[in-house]
Amino acid sequence: MPYVNVKITREGGTTREQKAQVIKGISEVLRDVLGKPLSATFVVINEVELEDWGVGGLPVEDYRRQAGEKS
Amino acid sequence: MPYVNVKITREGGTTREQKAQVIKGISEVLRDVLGKPLSATFVVINEVELEDWGVGGLPVEDYRRQAGEKS
Amino acid sequence: MPYVNVKITREGGTTREQKAQVIKGISEVLRDVLGKPLSATFVVINEVELEDWGVGGLPVEDYRRQAGEKS
Amino acid sequence: MPYVNVKITREGGTTREQKAQVIKGISEVLRDVLGKPLSATFVVINEVELEDWGVGGLPVEDYRRQAGEKS
Amino acid sequence: MPYVNVKITREGGTTREQKAQVIKGISEVLRDVLGKPLSATFVVINEVELEDWGVGGLPVEDYRRQAGEKS
Amino acid sequence: MPYVNVKITREGGTTREQKAQVIKGISEVLRDVLGKPLSATFVVINEVELEDWGVGGLPVEDYRRQAGEKS
Repeated sequence: MPYVNVKITREGGTTREQKAQVIKGISEVLRDVLGKPLSATFVVINEVELEDWGVGGLPVEDYRRQAGEKS
Repeated sequence: MPYVNVKITREGGTTREQKAQVIKGISEVLRDVLGKPLSATFVVINEVELEDWGVGGLPVEDYRRQAGEKS
Repeated sequence: MPYVNVKITREGGTTREQKAQVIKGISEVLRDVLGKPLSATFVVINEVELEDWGVGGLPVEDYRRQAGEKS
Repeated sequence: MPYVNVKITREGGTTREQKAQVIKGISEVLRDVLGKPLSATFVVINEVELEDWGVGGLPVEDYRRQAGEKS
Repeated sequence: MPYVNVKITREGGTTREQKAQVIKGISEVLRDVLGKPLSATFVVINEVELEDWGVGGLPVEDYRRQAGEKS
Repeated sequence: MPYVNVKITREGGTTREQKAQVIKGISEVLRDVLGKPLSATFVVINEVELEDWGVGGLPVEDYRRQAGEKS
């Protein structure tokens, strides 16, 4: 009975179909590797607004802009 | 000073009154069983969109539809 | 299908029986208030070492000692 | 590569600039105290609706109102 | 830059190799479905003691024993 | 009343003193930026075993070894 929480940035909206594939894919990894039954595996996806996600000490948009300037 | 996180699917909207009862009920369980003071117990509720919750390798709506067809 | 995560400080060791009561109590609150079936409710308890839990800007043991001195 | 999750109540809306300062401040604490590189530190902020946050066995707004009456 | 948290019960000890496969499998699902770069994907596994995991209002071992008796 | 969860890899053991500094530093960031009272701020630190932390599709030790070979 695994519980998996997937946090991703909200970027133009992940489609319902993509979320279904993420749920299917992750559940099958746990079934195939650890023998966990699909019916007892919860997968919960959280889409996080860009301004709420920080990396490199910056909001992710600023981090990407800065990285873009350096490359 | 317990911290309790409750993740539930958003289904027609859980009312403010129901959330208050969940907060009260859970806090009192921790007080009565473990002696945790109510004033130092945090309870945070997250309502999750149905398309963001997977079980059985499927988004929960598809899982329920499939289960419905079998029964 | 709720998922509930309960974080508590590890203080002399919460017994298996107490944990069973917490699981039962919380699951029943969600059944009674929100109609969530027990069989689809996960409750996961995390016991956290005292030095890993901070409140008032201090590790909890120091916070309690300081609060004790003031009272 | 720390992962930090910050849950705060949504109260009049924390500004983007404040969130940027929280991301910066927390990332720098982990760099200065534990030597964790900023570029490998994730900080994710969750703003929680007031009705979804409980303390003292009550939704936080009721808790504050009650505390106000006592003081 | 996804962050994935995988909570599983500790049952005889998941091997390091199995954990590596879970990390690889989940990261690749997010790359293939959502285009997330592997290098920016964190996967954190938590093994939870059986007495700390509840389902059906019971600690998981009791739940399984009870389910075994019914089948 | 913020709740902050800090997940870091367990590498030689973060000292109690360092954890106290992390708790203090993070709590003060939330006080100074958002006006959150220290007494109502929880900070919980989780040290994660290296084999339980994945990045780049690999357990972090393998990822670092691979990165070392490339540099």
